[in-house]
Amino acid sequence: MEETTNQSNAKETSRLEAFSDGVFAIAITLLVLELITTLHAENGSGLIQTCLDHWQSFLAFTIGFVTIMVCWVNHHVAFDYIKKIDTKLIWINGFLLFVVTLTPFPTAILAEYLAKEGTTALAFFGFNYILISVAADSICTYAYNHHLIAETNREYYYSYKLIYRYALFYVLIAFAICFISVVAAITMYALLFAVFAAPKEFASRVHKIRERKRKNRIKRRKQ
Amino acid sequence: MEETTNQSNAKETSRLEAFSDGVFAIAITLLVLELITTLHAENGSGLIQTCLDHWQSFLAFTIGFVTIMVCWVNHHVAFDYIKKIDTKLIWINGFLLFVVTLTPFPTAILAEYLAKEGTTALAFFGFNYILISVAADSICTYAYNHHLIAETNREYYYSYKLIYRYALFYVLIAFAICFISVVAAITMYALLFAVFAAPKEFASRVHKIRERKRKNRIKRRKQ
Amino acid sequence: MEETTNQSNAKETSRLEAFSDGVFAIAITLLVLELITTLHAENGSGLIQTCLDHWQSFLAFTIGFVTIMVCWVNHHVAFDYIKKIDTKLIWINGFLLFVVTLTPFPTAILAEYLAKEGTTALAFFGFNYILISVAADSICTYAYNHHLIAETNREYYYSYKLIYRYALFYVLIAFAICFISVVAAITMYALLFAVFAAPKEFASRVHKIRERKRKNRIKRRKQ
Amino acid sequence: MEETTNQSNAKETSRLEAFSDGVFAIAITLLVLELITTLHAENGSGLIQTCLDHWQSFLAFTIGFVTIMVCWVNHHVAFDYIKKIDTKLIWINGFLLFVVTLTPFPTAILAEYLAKEGTTALAFFGFNYILISVAADSICTYAYNHHLIAETNREYYYSYKLIYRYALFYVLIAFAICFISVVAAITMYALLFAVFAAPKEFASRVHKIRERKRKNRIKRRKQ
Repeated sequence: MEETTNQSNAKETSRLEAFSDGVFAIAITLLVLELITTLHAENGSGLIQTCLDHWQSFLAFTIGFVTIMVCWVNHHVAFDYIKKIDTKLIWINGFLLFVVTLTPFPTAILAEYLAKEGTTALAFFGFNYILISVAADSICTYAYNHHLIAETNREYYYSYKLIYRYALFYVLIAFAICFISVVAAITMYALLFAVFAAPKEFASRVHKIRERKRKNRIKRRKQ
Repeated sequence: MEETTNQSNAKETSRLEAFSDGVFAIAITLLVLELITTLHAENGSGLIQTCLDHWQSFLAFTIGFVTIMVCWVNHHVAFDYIKKIDTKLIWINGFLLFVVTLTPFPTAILAEYLAKEGTTALAFFGFNYILISVAADSICTYAYNHHLIAETNREYYYSYKLIYRYALFYVLIAFAICFISVVAAITMYALLFAVFAAPKEFASRVHKIRERKRKNRIKRRKQ
Repeated sequence: MEETTNQSNAKETSRLEAFSDGVFAIAITLLVLELITTLHAENGSGLIQTCLDHWQSFLAFTIGFVTIMVCWVNHHVAFDYIKKIDTKLIWINGFLLFVVTLTPFPTAILAEYLAKEGTTALAFFGFNYILISVAADSICTYAYNHHLIAETNREYYYSYKLIYRYALFYVLIAFAICFISVVAAITMYALLFAVFAAPKEFASRVHKIRERKRKNRIKRRKQ
Repeated sequence: MEETTNQSNAKETSRLEAFSDGVFAIAITLLVLELITTLHAENGSGLIQTCLDHWQSFLAFTIGFVTIMVCWVNHHVAFDYIKKIDTKLIWINGFLLFVVTLTPFPTAILAEYLAKEGTTALAFFGFNYILISVAADSICTYAYNHHLIAETNREYYYSYKLIYRYALFYVLIAFAICFISVVAAITMYALLFAVFAAPKEFASRVHKIRERKRKNRIKRRKQ
């Protein structure tokens, strides 16, 4: 059994990725159903007026799409480094998928309650984002601690892991701020999306800063 | 044609897995649609009140998610060992997929009838779980009896097959118990989920116990 | 460019299969949504009564599932032999996918109109099955005529192609018969499902009969 | 890390393709839900009358299916040439997926408003097609400019890239024309579908014309 372990691991990783990809793809596509229901709400007004009346639905669709897409990009990069999986990682990933499948729900809340109860609606969305961040942080930390990544990438992966720890604190603050100002919180989420749209580039920058600091420390010691 | 059989089998297995993964992924993601419909039930109360009123929907979503996820994890492990497929296995697997695609239905029943008709709602869910167990048991038994697994794993796979036979009797008992006590039945399902969340680890433990017993038997004979 | 053709073809085939698998998996899973809507039809009666009232929905779900599953099994076997694809095959396959994505519609018709307008409802379903048969026949004939299958399998594939031609005539007759007797037509479809559940075995049997006839012909000529 | 780049790129490309395939497959299959809702609109008339009353829904389903299918075929061909991906391409592709997941919405608009507000409904659909064209053009241009395709295919890919630039101008004109004549615009879209159903063949033809022109130019210079 031992000699087939490597191959078996590769197969396992790819099936977990395929299943996760399926969940991401469906969750992101189901968002449109909420948009279509706006058409069914017969109110006598014309097509353009109906669409203008439901501008929050379009905004929510876009926010929901970007949320899940950013999530997929980060999942994709994280599993590029992960070479082995075990039962615990499957379930930590399962928790991430749980939150991803849930995401169309806070998105629908945004669409229907953003105008009426902005703060509460955004708090639901923010809470969802806290759960996503907890899941992302757990996946990276677990993979790092249990040596499920290639040893050659270990040092770099530490920086990668770090950015999800930062993100977790960031979304906790954004959640709190939404009770003070909805606009400020939305700006914070937009900024988060912009940075985590390119997790590799962000992690590289963090990695370079860490490397520079380490070299400086060594230099100082030598002096 | 003979020389390409092995490769062809590998391709067939992976397509069956890919198709099954698709079905699992969609069934698990469709659960959220039932959650979203709760938002559409306009009843004049605020967002938080609406969510609190539908706590069963959230519970049902979680139960449905865990059910399908546990099912996927076990399917994933089972097909890790299965190296060949034939038409009968495709259809036994097809029966499993039938029950998986059906699962959002008893989940929706839980969401809408748990408060009103708890026993009947749980009985529907329990019946669904009996069907899942029959399918899981059939896949493992068929693959074992028709030598569709690698010969080197045969002894170990027997233990693996055994736990699904146990599970089948367990869910039959849980089904009966739900007519006596809903809480007791839910506890039994929670325990089942906990054990089958890690089927490899569970099968390994069963395998070790069987090995120890076998050695003891041999020892006794030698004495 | 020439040297990479083989590899590129393999990649193309697998992407076409993956996309088709996705469509099959989703179409088969969407069927449950029609089942769930029966729960939302509040009519004051209890859960069991509601389910009994909608027995046609359960029958339709089963028929729809078996239809798409049989379709997938046959698609799976057909593409096991197909080694190359071209733009025309993509579009013939696209026509099959069109009918597969459409299938939940006649299934929903069966669920809602089988009791009220049995003949018309079954005619819709039968028309859908004619389209599926045309698509299946076209894929096999096109792949055979344009040498998209391995040459070594060519003789065998002819028998395989033959069974879809038979099937096409069969479903045309079943469609006509449904206007005379709904029960007779349903029996014909059940028989069709039973035979095409194992297309490889059916094609092999047809192939053996053809081989025997050919040998007899050669024998007779020699005499 | 450098030596694993090629393999890692192949894996990344295939995961992006798998995720995109999932999104395409779901978007194309969700279209049927809009068809099924027509059945639920109880109006007392029989099944055939109900279907005849909703002929626009069937037309819209067909148009939506062909739109997404053409889109998939072109995505499939484009990524056949793309050998590397980077974060920017993931997001350009993400924009394409955004429009693809959105497509069931203008399709539903066509179904419900084609008879009532033909011009506006078609304008929504046309705007959606402009977005698709912008995305397709961006993917090809970015891949070409950033050398993400194999160098051997570079010259040919230029022709390929060219047809999407043409298409972009074409759909802009079609969008404008729909305000003058709905029938003329629909004819233009049908023509576009016919040509882009076989993007490889179309690009080859454009490539041959370009080659002939180039040779003529060289000849003239020599004279």
